[in-house]
Amino acid sequence: MAMVNIVLVSHGELGDALIQAAEMIAGPAERLFSVPLLPGESPESFGEKLDAALREIAGEETLVLIDLFGGTPYNVAARQVLKENVECVTGANLPMLLELVMSRDDATLAELAEDIAQAGRESVKNLGPTLCK
Amino acid sequence: MAMVNIVLVSHGELGDALIQAAEMIAGPAERLFSVPLLPGESPESFGEKLDAALREIAGEETLVLIDLFGGTPYNVAARQVLKENVECVTGANLPMLLELVMSRDDATLAELAEDIAQAGRESVKNLGPTLCK
Repeated sequence: MAMVNIVLVSHGELGDALIQAAEMIAGPAERLFSVPLLPGESPESFGEKLDAALREIAGEETLVLIDLFGGTPYNVAARQVLKENVECVTGANLPMLLELVMSRDDATLAELAEDIAQAGRESVKNLGPTLCK
Repeated sequence: MAMVNIVLVSHGELGDALIQAAEMIAGPAERLFSVPLLPGESPESFGEKLDAALREIAGEETLVLIDLFGGTPYNVAARQVLKENVECVTGANLPMLLELVMSRDDATLAELAEDIAQAGRESVKNLGPTLCK
């Protein structure tokens, strides 16, 4: 089974910064792509960049990690989930990307999407109450 | 009441990228700070940068948004939550920062920490099952 591709779509350099942060922790990773919406860029231009990136990996299993539910990156990318070999998850954070990089060979694509969504939710901790502040 | 300070602590440029992305959506925001752990930087050096940033806003209400539960930025920054006027939340993502920037004048600091943690968890959506794929 080929390695699942990971495509980050985000406002500005957020996707690139998530990849940099994940690689600081887990080391260099393959098949990680970032498609940034640049400040002032049109949805059409962003869509062309996303199409070009996805064309390279067409037919392969791909997880699209989106920064935010709503907004241009989401609006342009979310329809990709209708493809059989693509899953999309919103609310991208570093724990989700780390989980994805480290476990993408261990589960089906659908399971992986559910696993990283759960990992993302569990990674959000308000430390004050945790410490009985 | 003074505006709550927001301090992002992260691996690499993730904090800066989150600020850039939030400002692409919500416009320029004040009292937003980023303290990055650079690749290869020691915890001591990172701690000195964090101390320097926090010295500027000592005594003011501050929310520290941490990229990941665990790792150097968390290990160095989490103890700040012991201060009365500081809250810390992990798992930073764009929806959390946006919620924070847009609602930081509307609640107490403790409420704000809980609100953005909830917003962060709710922002993580697996689109496939949502669309009954």
